[in-house]
Order: sequence, then C-alpha cells, then structure tokens
Amino acid sequence: MYFWSVISVSIIGTGNVAFHLAKALSTSQSAKLQFIAGRSTTQLTDFKAFAEVSTQVSDTFHSDLIILAVSDNAIGEIAEKLQYTNGLLVHTSGSTAMDVLAPKTRIGVCYPLQTFSKRKDLNYRKIPFLLEANHQEDYALLEKLLGSLNAPVHQMNSKDRASIHLAAVFSNNFTNHILTEAAQLCNQHQVSFELLKPLLEETLEKAFLNGPENSQTGPAKRHDTQTIQKQLEALKTSEQQELYSTLTKAIQNYYER
Amino acid sequence: MYFWSVISVSIIGTGNVAFHLAKALSTSQSAKLQFIAGRSTTQLTDFKAFAEVSTQVSDTFHSDLIILAVSDNAIGEIAEKLQYTNGLLVHTSGSTAMDVLAPKTRIGVCYPLQTFSKRKDLNYRKIPFLLEANHQEDYALLEKLLGSLNAPVHQMNSKDRASIHLAAVFSNNFTNHILTEAAQLCNQHQVSFELLKPLLEETLEKAFLNGPENSQTGPAKRHDTQTIQKQLEALKTSEQQELYSTLTKAIQNYYER
Repeated sequence: MYFWSVISVSIIGTGNVAFHLAKALSTSQSAKLQFIAGRSTTQLTDFKAFAEVSTQVSDTFHSDLIILAVSDNAIGEIAEKLQYTNGLLVHTSGSTAMDVLAPKTRIGVCYPLQTFSKRKDLNYRKIPFLLEANHQEDYALLEKLLGSLNAPVHQMNSKDRASIHLAAVFSNNFTNHILTEAAQLCNQHQVSFELLKPLLEETLEKAFLNGPENSQTGPAKRHDTQTIQKQLEALKTSEQQELYSTLTKAIQNYYER
Repeated sequence: MYFWSVISVSIIGTGNVAFHLAKALSTSQSAKLQFIAGRSTTQLTDFKAFAEVSTQVSDTFHSDLIILAVSDNAIGEIAEKLQYTNGLLVHTSGSTAMDVLAPKTRIGVCYPLQTFSKRKDLNYRKIPFLLEANHQEDYALLEKLLGSLNAPVHQMNSKDRASIHLAAVFSNNFTNHILTEAAQLCNQHQVSFELLKPLLEETLEKAFLNGPENSQTGPAKRHDTQTIQKQLEALKTSEQQELYSTLTKAIQNYYER
C-alpha cells in the first residue's frame, strides 16, 4: 500500500465526461490536472480554463493517472499508443471491459453512472462511480481521487458493469424516449408537458420504495381492452402505436409469467 | 355566481382514488363528507374512519357533490341511477368523456393526474386536478373544494384530458415497466437497482429543463451498432430483446424524421 499527497492526472478526450471530470479535478485538493489531450484544437478551447491542452497524447505520459474519456470504439486504439507509460491508465466506459487496455498491466476503469450535459452543473454526491483496477494500489488511487470529489464509489468487475450499463440504457435512454413521446402527445393537444412532472416524480419514488414490479397500474396491467383500443386509435403516428402495443404486451406478459 | 360555506360531498367507490379523496375531504374545512357508498361492506370497512358508509347509492342523493370514483366501465351504469339527484355529479376518470354522465346536466369531471397507492400518503400540492363542468357555478364549486386541499387545478375539456391521460400512461405505466426490466437486469447480476436512482432523477430533471427530445444520448441515438449488438446478445429474455429493439428503432426513427 502506498499513498499520494497529490495525484497528477491527465485526461484524453473532449466530450462531456472529459469536460466535467476536467472541471472537477482542476479544483480538487488531491489532484493536479496536468494535460487535456484531444485531436482538435477547437474542441480543446473550452478546456484551457482547467489545465494545459495538447493535441499530442504523449504529453500525458508522465502523469500518475491517465483518464481515457473517449468513445468506446476509440479506447483500444488510443490505449495502444499509451502502453509504455508508467502511469495508471483507465477508461470511463460502462460497456467496455477493462482488458481492452491490456497488455499494459496498470489498468482500470472509472465509470460514472450518470448522464452528462456540458452546460449543466453536476452534484458529485449523485454520481456513483463504478471502479475497477488490476492492482489494489491502483484501486486505492482511484478511490482517493473520486473520494476527493465526494462521489460515492463502488467496486465492480467488467461483467457486472456491462449489465448495469445495460440497465442504465433502459433507465436513461429508453425512459427519455418514452417521455419524448409523452411530450409530443401533449404538444399535439396544446396541453403542458409540465403537468406530468409530479406524476413522474411519484412514479420514480414508488419504484425505488416498493420496487417497480410492485407498482404497476393502468389499462395494460388490468387488461382493460376497451381503453387500450381507444388509446391505440387516438395515437397519430405508427411509431407511437408500435411503442404502445409493444409496451402493453410486455406489461401483460410480465404479470402472466 | 353563488357561494358555499361548506360543500356536502359523497363518494361512490372504494378504490385508491376514493380512499385518498375520502381521507383528504374528511378533514377539509370546506367540505362535509356525508357518505361513502360501495357494493361490498368489506371494502367499505377502511372508510368508516372518514364518514358514514353505505351499500345504497341512493344515500348520496342529497349531497351538493357526488364523486363517482369507480372503474371507467362502471361510470355510465352508476350515473344512470343518479340522474334525478339535484347534486353535481362528477367522475374522476382521465380517459372518459364528461358526457357519459348525461342526460343529467349538472355534471363534471375531477381527474387527479397522479398515481395512487392506498398505503402511501400524498402531497396534494403535487396532484394537478384537471377539472371540467357543464356550468360555471359547478366549476367554481370544484375549484373551491380542490383549492381547500391545496391541489393545483386546471380547466380542461374531455378531448384534451384524454390526450394527457394517454401521455400519463406513457409516463407512468410504460416508464414503470422500463424500470421493472432495468431492475430485473440488476437482479440477474446481483447489482443494486438503487445505484440507478441518481441517473433516473437526473434524466427527469433534464427532460423538464431542456425537453426530453433535446436530452437523448446513448447507443441508439449515435447509431453505435457494435454496442447495440453486444447489448442485444447480453439480454436473457425475448421480452427484453423485443423492448430493446423496438425502443432502439423508435429512437433512431425519431431523430431521422
């Protein structure tokens, strides 16, 4: 076990995750943010407030920790260029195995289970970080760094992380699309989408209080074919009708199992 | 325009909406809850704390307001038995037109846009009531009564109410089922569903801040076929696979329009 007073960190990538990590780490007492590396100088402009920027990944070689916050498909390729650094190399992807960073052995994963937008400030207490590392010392380093941001951390292997990433796709992307269709229904009839906010908040609260499987109500669950038929006919697009049918059938199948 | 110091109210029905309305109205300064009528004495037991209970709908005839909080299919049939009362007759259904209560003319609708569970206490400030009435005085009566519970009220005709009820089915029932599948994915891999709570809260917050259509991210939106394929293969049930495919396709179609 060893300790660091200050961890030197570089980030590779210029997306939303890179932006928020750079912003947070630039003010952390436990970290010295050294470089942010990216391909395009334009995209690096926003990062100049946080640390030195560079278009050369080699500039990151001397940091204790190099965070690869790039798209899933680019991780392996960039990792190859970094395999001879002494630093710990981690990626931030939920669905990518840690092994993509091999043959380098000081490797790890630092996956923030949250949705990031560039313009919206984040409360790190509400970003669970799922961490993984090949060596216990490197895990401790990640734990210390994220702890300095007040983020809750959880140790999780690549297989379990992929599952929760999949559950996150359901929770975030699919839920958001359902809301997109609901908002569109409101717009079509000039009623305010905002009216649905308390219902959605209560839906979430109940799901985490009693389990979503114990909270289902509505026409699908009670096989109210009259209302189902009426609602299908009221839907204006074939996309909405298909979503309605698929989800109604899914609910009915689930409770008949 | 006329005023009431205290509105006498009876409720017909013994479901969750009836229960919560009875509970709230029994303590309202503006209302005197007279009768709760239902078919079964067993189901009426829980209501004895709030007012007199009865298995005869005729006991409700002398109230200023009779609230029909029964299943959609039963509304018309019970309304027939009530057409000669002098009181205002309202139902609480989102998807049922006010006219179902005709030929009686003092009719209206009082639809709470919220999900109710018997055991969970409610904050009426977070229950938008969508109101409709045939006469202005009757609308004012409903407005006064719900105002006494601190509930926000909105005037809405039957057609618009049916649309927002449909949007509510998407928001509540369909979102809840998506969460049910997400929770199942977590259970299958022994990871805690609770970890997804901050992500879901942020998803909701962003949807109402920027509009859900401007908040979409993820493999479907960015056409990341590699991740989509990998995730489809990781899903264990054909129901999960069908939901994943349908929602992925829906997201892609939506952003290509």
